[in-house]
Amino acid sequence: MTARAQNLVEGAGLVPVSEDPFCREARLGTLDSLITPTERFYIRNHFHEVPDIDPRDYRLTIDGLVRKPLSLSLDDLTAMPSTDLVVTLECAGNSRSFITPPAEGLAFKHGAISTAQWRGVSLASVLNNAGLKDGIKEVVFHGADHGEEEEHGRKLDIDYGRSLPLEIALDPNIILAYEMNGQPLTPGHGFPLRLVVPGWFGMASVKWLTNIHPTDEPYHGFFQKRRYVYINEGTENVAERQPVSALKVKSLITHPRHGEVIQPGPYTVRGFAWSGAGEVAKLDVSVNGGKSWRKAKLERAANSGAWQPWELPWQATDPGHYVFMARATDSAGNVQPRTVPWNFRGYANNAIHTIAIEVPFT
Amino acid sequence: MTARAQNLVEGAGLVPVSEDPFCREARLGTLDSLITPTERFYIRNHFHEVPDIDPRDYRLTIDGLVRKPLSLSLDDLTAMPSTDLVVTLECAGNSRSFITPPAEGLAFKHGAISTAQWRGVSLASVLNNAGLKDGIKEVVFHGADHGEEEEHGRKLDIDYGRSLPLEIALDPNIILAYEMNGQPLTPGHGFPLRLVVPGWFGMASVKWLTNIHPTDEPYHGFFQKRRYVYINEGTENVAERQPVSALKVKSLITHPRHGEVIQPGPYTVRGFAWSGAGEVAKLDVSVNGGKSWRKAKLERAANSGAWQPWELPWQATDPGHYVFMARATDSAGNVQPRTVPWNFRGYANNAIHTIAIEVPFT
Repeated sequence: MTARAQNLVEGAGLVPVSEDPFCREARLGTLDSLITPTERFYIRNHFHEVPDIDPRDYRLTIDGLVRKPLSLSLDDLTAMPSTDLVVTLECAGNSRSFITPPAEGLAFKHGAISTAQWRGVSLASVLNNAGLKDGIKEVVFHGADHGEEEEHGRKLDIDYGRSLPLEIALDPNIILAYEMNGQPLTPGHGFPLRLVVPGWFGMASVKWLTNIHPTDEPYHGFFQKRRYVYINEGTENVAERQPVSALKVKSLITHPRHGEVIQPGPYTVRGFAWSGAGEVAKLDVSVNGGKSWRKAKLERAANSGAWQPWELPWQATDPGHYVFMARATDSAGNVQPRTVPWNFRGYANNAIHTIAIEVPFT
Repeated sequence: MTARAQNLVEGAGLVPVSEDPFCREARLGTLDSLITPTERFYIRNHFHEVPDIDPRDYRLTIDGLVRKPLSLSLDDLTAMPSTDLVVTLECAGNSRSFITPPAEGLAFKHGAISTAQWRGVSLASVLNNAGLKDGIKEVVFHGADHGEEEEHGRKLDIDYGRSLPLEIALDPNIILAYEMNGQPLTPGHGFPLRLVVPGWFGMASVKWLTNIHPTDEPYHGFFQKRRYVYINEGTENVAERQPVSALKVKSLITHPRHGEVIQPGPYTVRGFAWSGAGEVAKLDVSVNGGKSWRKAKLERAANSGAWQPWELPWQATDPGHYVFMARATDSAGNVQPRTVPWNFRGYANNAIHTIAIEVPFT
């Protein structure tokens, strides 16, 4: 199957955002279970080509500041003790369309968020097998995906790479995943191996992972210093650009959909909430445009890094239009704001999700 | 020329919003003079067909509660004393794209606003010639445009009509305009005659005007009670729906454009401000995302109903991204808000205009 045909098969149940690179977001209304079926899981690629990797030839190399460089086959990885985790990934550009003033980048609405059950090998154990040398500051992860990007009118030939600070990389919950929802990864989701970093925006979870490189130098790759960085309002010091990292506290209303017509009677408002700074501790819902708030029933997280379902019973009675909002507070005390400060590329918009529904005249 | 070809000629310099009905908005950057050239003036039609009126057959009828019903030819109208006014029209749906949550209707950005020099006959004098009877509450205006609209799944065959309260209709500044910027009206702008209501949203300025009907009954036409009404959050009482009427205090930044790259050096930030509740008295600009504000130089209005140019000198120095905002205050004390309360059809969004510009690294 061609890469294009493969893309279209994987994206059939999703909302088009971009054709090249191939990007699709989920329909919020289809996010109705803790685990998102793979065919409803958002896709964010960075280049024209989706890597087409023969699993028999595949190797994951670990080099750089290690005592024993490794070259692992897929069989080597699957033979190691495995870890299963429910992990929510959210694209850093999710909800970008709703930033004011408009921000640069793909026009994601709210659907670049999904959750899967991932199985793989602990990153920490692989790093341990390779033996970390002293002085490491960051661990760089490279994917097999590569292509052209344009910057200030110049074409750059680059591959996909991101780094994690060493102390983050040693988190035992970060996995090198070879299964997603009980099946091998699909090509669009990084076959055969994807780094999965719980609690971080999706750009950290490098797809088509081929190389792990601990280093004592700060990593200056394109996706570390030019994209997925916060460029805020005001005079900029490029040397001080902060890379996008942990998820912000956020929630979404998945039911009802914005614009839904609800017949009079009982209705359960529901959705998900998550944070990269601890568990979500409280979820408030307004059914009157923020004039008053009610506490929703909120589930505990399946594990750290998994979103938490919430629900609130509501009674549709009088005809009219009603504005619903959901507001999450995490265990570190972070609360979703009404609006977020602007940043040039519109990353990490965790403003309160607001929808309007209609109770019709009968 | 077919209606479609005519549309495309008139819309060539404008931004597509909808093909059927044919709607185009202005590019903010082209709004660089007090008077908008006709080919840059936004177009908001309501039906598939643009009326194709032979001026020799044209009649404006005045009937209803008048002592002497009239049927006026174009020659009759142009033979009457004429009035010249600079009048700004803003579509009620202007800036709809920036309402939260998303609102129903055509996705206008900020360009459904333009200003022309209109010449025509005073509405008050025509009403006076017809002789108003006692008990009139509203004056209904009908255009020659008609077609289908869908409401609750039913197709309705309707024409375009709007009413004004009698006390508004007697405003001597309302004109029956047969010239726009020194030329006969174009087909897209209502040839041969358009009602021009200074200080009101554009839906009141009925195009292809054919009938004026003073009445003692409240008018219940489609565009009076089902469209161009405020449907706010909460339980709705249809009998109490408020029609959209006077313009809200508002301003726009026309230079620079959002996203513009400005080389270091002096730059003049400029734009327009207007209100339906009196003259704009003050225009504040922020060049740092609202942290501080500076008073811009604001021109007086050419006449009541005309927008007012404003400008502020700025010095681009350090590289970075800067968020500019403009905030108008009118003589009645109304100030533009940061965000507006949601209404179902997203009318009358006068939230502070916010753009981001870049000063590049050199």
